Amino acid sequence: MEMRRLLMPEIDEVIRQKDWKTLKGILVELESQDIAEMLEDIPYPEKVIIFRLLSKEQANETFSYMESDEQEEMLHHFSKNEIKDIINGMDPDDRNDLFDELPAGLVKKYLEFLTPDEREVAALLLNYPEHSAGHIMTTDFIELYEDITADEAINYIRKNAKESETIYISYVIGHHRELVGVVSLKDLILAKPEVIVKEIMDDNPIYVNTMDDQENVANLMKKYDFLAIPVVDSDGRLVGIVTFDDIMDIIEDENTEDFQKMAAMSPMEMPYFSLNTIKLAWNRFIWIFVLIVLESISGNIIQRYQDVLKVVVALAIFIPMITDTGGNAGTQSSTIVIRGLATGDIELKDIFRLILRELLIGILIASAIGIVAFVRAYLFHVGSLIALTVAIAILITIFVSNLTGAFLPFLFKSLKVDPAIAAGPFITTIVDITGLVIYFEVAKRLLHI
Amino acid sequence: MEMRRLLMPEIDEVIRQKDWKTLKGILVELESQDIAEMLEDIPYPEKVIIFRLLSKEQANETFSYMESDEQEEMLHHFSKNEIKDIINGMDPDDRNDLFDELPAGLVKKYLEFLTPDEREVAALLLNYPEHSAGHIMTTDFIELYEDITADEAINYIRKNAKESETIYISYVIGHHRELVGVVSLKDLILAKPEVIVKEIMDDNPIYVNTMDDQENVANLMKKYDFLAIPVVDSDGRLVGIVTFDDIMDIIEDENTEDFQKMAAMSPMEMPYFSLNTIKLAWNRFIWIFVLIVLESISGNIIQRYQDVLKVVVALAIFIPMITDTGGNAGTQSSTIVIRGLATGDIELKDIFRLILRELLIGILIASAIGIVAFVRAYLFHVGSLIALTVAIAILITIFVSNLTGAFLPFLFKSLKVDPAIAAGPFITTIVDITGLVIYFEVAKRLLHI
Repeated sequence: MEMRRLLMPEIDEVIRQKDWKTLKGILVELESQDIAEMLEDIPYPEKVIIFRLLSKEQANETFSYMESDEQEEMLHHFSKNEIKDIINGMDPDDRNDLFDELPAGLVKKYLEFLTPDEREVAALLLNYPEHSAGHIMTTDFIELYEDITADEAINYIRKNAKESETIYISYVIGHHRELVGVVSLKDLILAKPEVIVKEIMDDNPIYVNTMDDQENVANLMKKYDFLAIPVVDSDGRLVGIVTFDDIMDIIEDENTEDFQKMAAMSPMEMPYFSLNTIKLAWNRFIWIFVLIVLESISGNIIQRYQDVLKVVVALAIFIPMITDTGGNAGTQSSTIVIRGLATGDIELKDIFRLILRELLIGILIASAIGIVAFVRAYLFHVGSLIALTVAIAILITIFVSNLTGAFLPFLFKSLKVDPAIAAGPFITTIVDITGLVIYFEVAKRLLHI
Repeated sequence: MEMRRLLMPEIDEVIRQKDWKTLKGILVELESQDIAEMLEDIPYPEKVIIFRLLSKEQANETFSYMESDEQEEMLHHFSKNEIKDIINGMDPDDRNDLFDELPAGLVKKYLEFLTPDEREVAALLLNYPEHSAGHIMTTDFIELYEDITADEAINYIRKNAKESETIYISYVIGHHRELVGVVSLKDLILAKPEVIVKEIMDDNPIYVNTMDDQENVANLMKKYDFLAIPVVDSDGRLVGIVTFDDIMDIIEDENTEDFQKMAAMSPMEMPYFSLNTIKLAWNRFIWIFVLIVLESISGNIIQRYQDVLKVVVALAIFIPMITDTGGNAGTQSSTIVIRGLATGDIELKDIFRLILRELLIGILIASAIGIVAFVRAYLFHVGSLIALTVAIAILITIFVSNLTGAFLPFLFKSLKVDPAIAAGPFITTIVDITGLVIYFEVAKRLLHI
């Protein structure tokens, strides 16, 4: 159960009465994630007052769980010493998330607030490109030498537990800090105390490089069910780890990005309500604008066939049916391929196998819908010849759209463009053009115009 | 690095030469996930021969990592004793995944192959509805009593490590098997050996109920960064746990489902290439069919306004521009809301705040695109009056579509229908109808037809 929901009415009452002493007692019982969520809805200056009621450890944790725009605003309300405490107390990876969102000037100022050690770590992470393993990793992990015993290792872990993000996996390094193995606390605990680490460690561990994309890191961790994965630099030296909790957030973010791209929007870095309205409107306008420009080709096509339309105005009735249905077929196949490429179910090498299959599926769907379209058009009392035109046009359109939808994401991927862009709105606009040409060409031939 | 990719040419060669002895030596060095992936591409009977080279533990693990259709096929090639070994050796949650995909008759047969203990567990999990916490949990976890010492707890964990899916979190139960606390191995190791578990455990743990939906389980684990979450039955008794690795798979599956629904497809339970072509075609046909029926309203509208079209055929040129642009605006806002509702960034209570904001964004985008549309239409040499008609119609259409897209997912959610259905193809079809009415009504008034 989430405690906060149960307690919320009570907490609200306590805050209203400014009964900080009672509140302090309640806060101790809550999870940091819940306090962060609760603080979102509380105005200043109460927000800062309540935050100051937290113990140092709880304050650090709660701050880390807040959205970056909330963190930024909160820092403006803090004293210099409070800022120092908070940003020195943050885990390196969480701090890096915050720094990503802050203006450069502020980052520079805050870097000076850090102790020399923390500053060095912060600068290291900031230097790696966004979305790279080096940028999202933490430097707080346990490293061991291979020639100590399991018992010594456990004692070492005990002593360093506080400064490490996980104690369940330790990393074994050589004398040049190169990664030589990985050993889990489970293996250490199950081993005889006098066994040497070298003998129980996995000496061929899976790792990522600092410059690897976070999506690859996530895919590896998902595949191997890792609690954490080591990150090595270009010289093979162990510099950090990425833990599963960060990966869950990354998977969510990457999925959200794909959803946004597939709906013709640029990825938005923050939750909806944290975003500036003007920026949001601009992000959406620009894509609708691009698509309208692309779409004017459809207008040109209809204009070119205006003479056909003048003779048989009834043809206009079915323009939306042709374009929509083509768009729907293209959306289906492109989504399957885009999603398959993202999860790894479909790879570039599968292209021929997939196109072959989509050919078959296209024939099945197109024939069935062709019949439906004939019946539907006939019910409009436009005569069987126009109904036949619609049926044949929709049959060819679905077939072509389906293949276009299946093929474009592959093309984009092999051109190193994100395949997610080849989705819904984009496909719809493309297949409108082909659909209309098919429609009018079929009409011209069948109706002898 | 993924070892398999490096070794693959070598492995291929060894398999071609049927050099099973060398292969056995190579397999020992590989991760089970990689062996499962490799086996996918190997035909029968080699697949079974290679599988039999694996050690018992590796065989169990490898089998668990295979896709369920591969598992099913493999079982048909096994002897009765091999089947017994494999399905008794599987983790309860992995076995349940497999049973979900098998025909009822086969499940019944395999249940009889299980030892009485395993059979009881298997029947328990199978009884909970699919996608519920009870269905996806495992019963292999460590339970402790609260009155033992940290040292005793660690010794108990050591003894039971083999039969438990994680040893890093232990669950503390009372004498009626009710969940009373959670303690991590970290806390146990850092505590003094003689400290009582009760004193260091979290006595107010977050848990889920057996009937809770897996999406809620995933959201809680993501929020609290849990390695595992306890599952209790309706009497408050601890019956299982769900671990983070299963949650990562569930998050991926739930996202894939949303992508599919948003592209007007029913969720597909298996990877693309494991699915039957006819089933896949049917799944997609049925949605295109529903949308074509819905879409015929657009046709009716154009037919109703045929007299307007006869007078000014040029109006037909802009039909795709009106419908596409409306669809794009609706797709953007609906995707934002659908995704926000799925991740929790947007909640039902946010509806007024969101609609207000979308009103503003709608005005901004609509006005800007209205101007673009005027220029674009004017360049078609259709005269400024038609250009003005297009501009005004597109302005109103975007505004309306944007609000419709923002509102519908809320409506669906409050009606307990998955909001993901209110996406792309569905919105596009709906706003086509309103867009066309707006277009022709504006035309009638401005062009005095």
